[in-house]
Amino acid sequence: MFGRATTVVLGIDPGVSRCGYGAVRRTGGTVEALACGVLRTAPSDPLPVRLASLQAELDQLVREVTPDAIAVERVLFQVNARTAMSVGQASGLALVVAARAGIPVAHYSPNEVKLAVTGYGAAVKEQVQDMVARLLALPAPPRPPDIADALALALCHCWSTRIAPDTEHAPTTRLRQAVAAAVAREETR
Amino acid sequence: MFGRATTVVLGIDPGVSRCGYGAVRRTGGTVEALACGVLRTAPSDPLPVRLASLQAELDQLVREVTPDAIAVERVLFQVNARTAMSVGQASGLALVVAARAGIPVAHYSPNEVKLAVTGYGAAVKEQVQDMVARLLALPAPPRPPDIADALALALCHCWSTRIAPDTEHAPTTRLRQAVAAAVAREETR
Repeated sequence: MFGRATTVVLGIDPGVSRCGYGAVRRTGGTVEALACGVLRTAPSDPLPVRLASLQAELDQLVREVTPDAIAVERVLFQVNARTAMSVGQASGLALVVAARAGIPVAHYSPNEVKLAVTGYGAAVKEQVQDMVARLLALPAPPRPPDIADALALALCHCWSTRIAPDTEHAPTTRLRQAVAAAVAREETR
Repeated sequence: MFGRATTVVLGIDPGVSRCGYGAVRRTGGTVEALACGVLRTAPSDPLPVRLASLQAELDQLVREVTPDAIAVERVLFQVNARTAMSVGQASGLALVVAARAGIPVAHYSPNEVKLAVTGYGAAVKEQVQDMVARLLALPAPPRPPDIADALALALCHCWSTRIAPDTEHAPTTRLRQAVAAAVAREETR
């Protein structure tokens, strides 16, 4: 059966001003982009209103895409706590939407995602955009980078579950080792 | 009319493992504690489930307390980004609950809260607990500190709006000046 199964993964790059999303369908060994975009909230609105609007839009998105899994960026160390707060607020809403819809969530650090799509855990944004376009046969690199990051998250989840579909969240040993090394590098920075 | 009006303020000290809350009723110049406690989520549950449960409990809390305003801690600089992420996730949920219920939200930094209840922006936890107990005529300092912090947040909002009830979110000039100085100290740390 494996090799024919179809899985839809929704990647979410959380943010309050701009929240990137990208849905990918994997059918056997091939992947294709289903949908991608950016959910935006108006900086002129009060923060509670912006967050409520973002959660409603994420809810709507999940209803439309009906993903089998949601991949959300895990932020290990942000440049500053203010950014981490904001990313935390947006990601928390995405996780609640997933839990309510009964959809499993997988977390990947930026390094894991870069490693999965470019083979290099410290790849720059342009490399990620280029590889996402190539892997999904898109006519141009997705912009803004939030969209590329969301699609890369979805691809990362497809990759890490491709070999062992019955252990949904277990990356392959080789990827796991590479990821552990990448995370270790990230943590010692 | 001012001096007789009754206002209920719900303070929320956001956290995923422990989310402190404290509701205070101000009637003219007096304040009293209405309710306080800690919402907890099980560390053994997956994070999305914990967050969904926290949001449902916050929603229930707001329905029961029916506050006129909600005061949430604003975290300017956390010790580390991991904590900021977690606080961000919990606070985001509280803000969405408030927005959906149409209740205005006020944010206060830890220094503003300490300054409001102890007169000293760098007060230690025990001072805050003691002053909260004294101001609300509680038989003992509220524990764990999450509860004291939540009640202090509610008191801070009562204080800062007591003098000018028609400009709900504008602290008095003196408090505003003191707060600006406290925040400046916090930012230069």
